[in-house]
Amino acid sequence: MFFATSSAWAKDDPPGTPASTNVSGADYPRVLPDRRVIFRVSAPDAHEIQFKLDKPYVAVRDANGAWTATTDPQFPGFHYYWMLVDNVPVNDPASETFFGYGRETSGIEIPEEGGDFSAPGDVPHGEIRERWYHAKTTGEWRRIFVYTPPGYDPDRSGRYPVLYLQHGRGENERGWSRQGRVSLIMDNLIADAKAKPMLIVMEHGYGHISGESAHWDYGQDLAVFTEVMLNDLIPMIDATYRTIPDREHRALAGLSMGGGQALEIGLGHLDAFAYIGTFSAGGFEGGPDDLRKMNNGVMADADAFNRRVHLLWLGVGTAEPPDLLSGVRQLHKVLGQAGINSIYYESPGTAHEWLTWRRCLHEFAPLLFAIR
Amino acid sequence: MFFATSSAWAKDDPPGTPASTNVSGADYPRVLPDRRVIFRVSAPDAHEIQFKLDKPYVAVRDANGAWTATTDPQFPGFHYYWMLVDNVPVNDPASETFFGYGRETSGIEIPEEGGDFSAPGDVPHGEIRERWYHAKTTGEWRRIFVYTPPGYDPDRSGRYPVLYLQHGRGENERGWSRQGRVSLIMDNLIADAKAKPMLIVMEHGYGHISGESAHWDYGQDLAVFTEVMLNDLIPMIDATYRTIPDREHRALAGLSMGGGQALEIGLGHLDAFAYIGTFSAGGFEGGPDDLRKMNNGVMADADAFNRRVHLLWLGVGTAEPPDLLSGVRQLHKVLGQAGINSIYYESPGTAHEWLTWRRCLHEFAPLLFAIR
Repeated sequence: MFFATSSAWAKDDPPGTPASTNVSGADYPRVLPDRRVIFRVSAPDAHEIQFKLDKPYVAVRDANGAWTATTDPQFPGFHYYWMLVDNVPVNDPASETFFGYGRETSGIEIPEEGGDFSAPGDVPHGEIRERWYHAKTTGEWRRIFVYTPPGYDPDRSGRYPVLYLQHGRGENERGWSRQGRVSLIMDNLIADAKAKPMLIVMEHGYGHISGESAHWDYGQDLAVFTEVMLNDLIPMIDATYRTIPDREHRALAGLSMGGGQALEIGLGHLDAFAYIGTFSAGGFEGGPDDLRKMNNGVMADADAFNRRVHLLWLGVGTAEPPDLLSGVRQLHKVLGQAGINSIYYESPGTAHEWLTWRRCLHEFAPLLFAIR
Repeated sequence: MFFATSSAWAKDDPPGTPASTNVSGADYPRVLPDRRVIFRVSAPDAHEIQFKLDKPYVAVRDANGAWTATTDPQFPGFHYYWMLVDNVPVNDPASETFFGYGRETSGIEIPEEGGDFSAPGDVPHGEIRERWYHAKTTGEWRRIFVYTPPGYDPDRSGRYPVLYLQHGRGENERGWSRQGRVSLIMDNLIADAKAKPMLIVMEHGYGHISGESAHWDYGQDLAVFTEVMLNDLIPMIDATYRTIPDREHRALAGLSMGGGQALEIGLGHLDAFAYIGTFSAGGFEGGPDDLRKMNNGVMADADAFNRRVHLLWLGVGTAEPPDLLSGVRQLHKVLGQAGINSIYYESPGTAHEWLTWRRCLHEFAPLLFAIR
């Protein structure tokens, strides 16, 4: 994945531009100016080829066995997609892959007008660091990615607050650094002095115990992951990086399943976190009285909660499934009725997808660590 | 990709163990104790499924549309593979993907007896850092990965030598950190005091100029990449990391195409590099006189060359294509005849594959920066 700073296409090139998510040298998929996508694959012996983007598109075969499909106009941002080769869902060999749906999946980036907030700018760049650590809770070597801001290395005495940032179900610890463009978003915000320099830790987020059956149970998984985060991850991070190791300088956020984790773990452990963010999660159906009973009554005393929690942030896309959208709106409304401070953001036009979450991060990060 | 430190399988589990390269929760492919592999995919509507590992294996369909193939015993180490769904080469959805053959490709790790040198040990762990930088030569934002050894952060005054380490053709800057396990190999070597702590920089390695036609020409590509390395990459690394920015503390190595780059760029720029390594590359057919004329006669004065180049290292697998194996042997022999010091290593039983290159790194790295 390379970002060209200039490009010039000869007149006899096919229409549109190869997607930036293509593997190097792949001419297809191409994005047209009206944001339709042209997919193409060579498959002389296949009986049917479809491309599944926002919906399935049946491809047409030419005499040489190349199959082509042109989609409807797409919303900007990052979208997962795949091919169906005689009904077998597989990646498009022309695309980079991105971990989603529990497997490596093709993806396409549709350029966004005004989307420069997540493009590489001529600004100081931080790093994404990959690190293995041993979690006693699960008996596993687990992999994390850590964003360190520009200046982290040269400023050898500075200490930094930490945001723990979780992906969604079916994704993994690489999601935020690839699909989410976390480093580019933060580099740009920090260069504009809109966000404080901070570390961002992205963990695997699943709580499977090594050697146990792989049957997945959300509650059990969350319980194990909570132990991993509190007893293994945070102590290791505070011992390894130049953090400010207290709750006033520690935030927890996530998208979808990760947003649920942020709410549950965050509200359950306010001794560890003072900032909580949930992106496309936290749908709620009850009223203020229900809220006051939740999470062991942590929100029963609104004033005490507001003094303790410096930010409770909710974000959602306006094109998300109606139940989720209305549930998050309801949570924000009921929080207000219960006297609990929260910030609410709606991403215009976006669904349960990465552009929602990139925008959420872009809105959320500037509010972090502002209150000491 | 997680490394379990313990595992326990119930008696009714299928034979063998899921490969460590599987996506989380995937039961297939499985590796049997005799190193055969069982592949399985669900594809009710496909007409033919093959798995291409060391050779194509035609899968057999059961009544439910699951296709299964069992391979011959495989050599240990990492191997690329793919599926053929009605003759269309695609990834196995059950596998993580690894960039090779110019695209994302499935891969399988066959455990190696005695292969602990590349497994995560209970030792201090370094990091792999992902960073974007702007190369004026090509007008692109390029991505690199940098290994920093354990202690790089806490030891805030220490400065480190740098190994520039290149992948092969069709692979990219992620190859060494994923398929090559560079961080695990180095962590283990450094913990055993067998290698000096060093930075390792892994670059994209291609020299395409942004906006120009994608037609690939090795000579032109090498010329552009040479400029990128000398004028963009090395100055950026020396300005960004705590390096010792001189030739005595800078090495260049690579595998296959990257080994060719290491020889050409290294021998052509001895003002920049004092250590050169080539893995599965550098085949040679001439005699000592031919050698003395190569690379502008840099080896014409053997004594001067030996004083200037502290290490010229050649490695190759004994199961590589015969022309390559004999060519590397010939280069080592002719170097000796010409009075040029070199170290030669053969990896027993391995082909043009990542186990050769992991072993090469494991042999090569301890010899680096020993002479000051």
